[in-house]
Amino acid sequence: MNRQQLTEQIFQKRSYLCVGLDTDIRKIPQHLHHHADPIFEFNRQIIDATKDLCVAYKINTAFYEAEGLKGWEAMERTVKYIPPTHFIIADAKRGDIGNTSAQYAIAFFERMNFDAITVAPYMGADSVQPFLAYKDRWAIVLCLTSNPGAADFELRTLIEREDILDEGIHITREHTCFLYEKVLDTVASWGTQENMMFVVGATRADQFAAVRKRTPHHFYLVPGVGAQGGSLKEISERALIGDCGLLVNASRAVIFASAGEDFAEKAGVVARKYQEEMSVYLSQLTNSR
Amino acid sequence: MNRQQLTEQIFQKRSYLCVGLDTDIRKIPQHLHHHADPIFEFNRQIIDATKDLCVAYKINTAFYEAEGLKGWEAMERTVKYIPPTHFIIADAKRGDIGNTSAQYAIAFFERMNFDAITVAPYMGADSVQPFLAYKDRWAIVLCLTSNPGAADFELRTLIEREDILDEGIHITREHTCFLYEKVLDTVASWGTQENMMFVVGATRADQFAAVRKRTPHHFYLVPGVGAQGGSLKEISERALIGDCGLLVNASRAVIFASAGEDFAEKAGVVARKYQEEMSVYLSQLTNSR
Repeated sequence: MNRQQLTEQIFQKRSYLCVGLDTDIRKIPQHLHHHADPIFEFNRQIIDATKDLCVAYKINTAFYEAEGLKGWEAMERTVKYIPPTHFIIADAKRGDIGNTSAQYAIAFFERMNFDAITVAPYMGADSVQPFLAYKDRWAIVLCLTSNPGAADFELRTLIEREDILDEGIHITREHTCFLYEKVLDTVASWGTQENMMFVVGATRADQFAAVRKRTPHHFYLVPGVGAQGGSLKEISERALIGDCGLLVNASRAVIFASAGEDFAEKAGVVARKYQEEMSVYLSQLTNSR
Repeated sequence: MNRQQLTEQIFQKRSYLCVGLDTDIRKIPQHLHHHADPIFEFNRQIIDATKDLCVAYKINTAFYEAEGLKGWEAMERTVKYIPPTHFIIADAKRGDIGNTSAQYAIAFFERMNFDAITVAPYMGADSVQPFLAYKDRWAIVLCLTSNPGAADFELRTLIEREDILDEGIHITREHTCFLYEKVLDTVASWGTQENMMFVVGATRADQFAAVRKRTPHHFYLVPGVGAQGGSLKEISERALIGDCGLLVNASRAVIFASAGEDFAEKAGVVARKYQEEMSVYLSQLTNSR
């Protein structure tokens, strides 16, 4: 899916909600366990109940891998079941040397029909670039994540020194920034606004203005609303742009809204709450243009 | 497998070779394709031909995921086939927020019986710690990788400033180090020398002495010998310690030594060459103690 198609979906549904299918088999309702493929059955009902309210689904691969072969099969079936109108994200946090990242791209873009994959930036350019070689597919690179561990490295300060000669005098220029800002600047130069997004956690609302300033035209995938406590209002105010530029993900808050037989219905109720709030922010955006 | 068991294997076989099963289905010999599971059949013959010469096998998950369900099945069969005397590494480069990393740990340590998994450090403590909660299992954290992209972030300079009061005078102390050095120091503090190793690329021999100085007692997993051009001699001289402390990986150079029917035999020949060289370095180590 390309950017224009994604944006059309957003303004048509008045939603930039991504529903995260972190389908933990130990948390799905008891009555589904008699199905041959309970993970898929759970996802199928969640998708049916939320598809009119969201524009994207994000599959957290860890929960499927934890179930081995059956989990992988449920993931493949789920990807096939999601309507072609929806942007499908493999939240896989992959990334390795070039020849290996190319294999992950085959796995998620060719073998399965994901539109995007989340990628860890630590290993640099050749670990990200293979994902950018596909038309209308996206690499969504980790920038500033929503978890406490973001403080360990992402929010450390980098320094760069540059020796210059100014009218015969040697001067050392120093420039400092957070690691995540360097990642943002550097990674943005490898791709385009049509094949690259960034992960920016909703719990980092204080950094959103700085992030948006550095990458004024990119889409962000924003996890951390809901169970992790981020504010949809704050991030929308700080990061919405003309064609939206945001996909805000909610996982547990939607899919595990109820543990009973009404789980899908309740998921729909929570998704609608998000969609209605998003609709207001999109209206404000349109009005201010 | 614990450290003592691994070390016993190393000194018994006089080898610290890890064979990387980067089993690319497009590169395996033609005559194997009539097998129901050609990837497993290839691995089985490689394992039979090399198991007396190596102490570890490293499965690069990307090559298996690229084959979908069949690939995942071949991975599971391969892990089961590797003898219990061998240390088995999932080269999976996983890492996500705590509840998700915990699922990856289930996938690789419970569902499959890997001894270790490679982990990307970008997201910090809670992305690594779930892998450290298992007895006799290991997290092998990316530190300084062998690929060109290592220059993009790993080799950037971090600065930390500390304000102190020295006899009534305010002083700002500055400390700089490479990002990979910060990763080494920080990540080492989360685990022990019994449940954590680091990935240090063989192509970074110039940095090996500095790495060893910071972590004098940890094991390293060293990729980059062979196809990527790293020198076994240089890294061994700079990083071998009393109980070895190194697992040196060769993938393509061993498993694709021949594209013909003699592929396993030729893999054995290359593995023996590495083992014989390693035996010399281990002898020098024992003599110098």
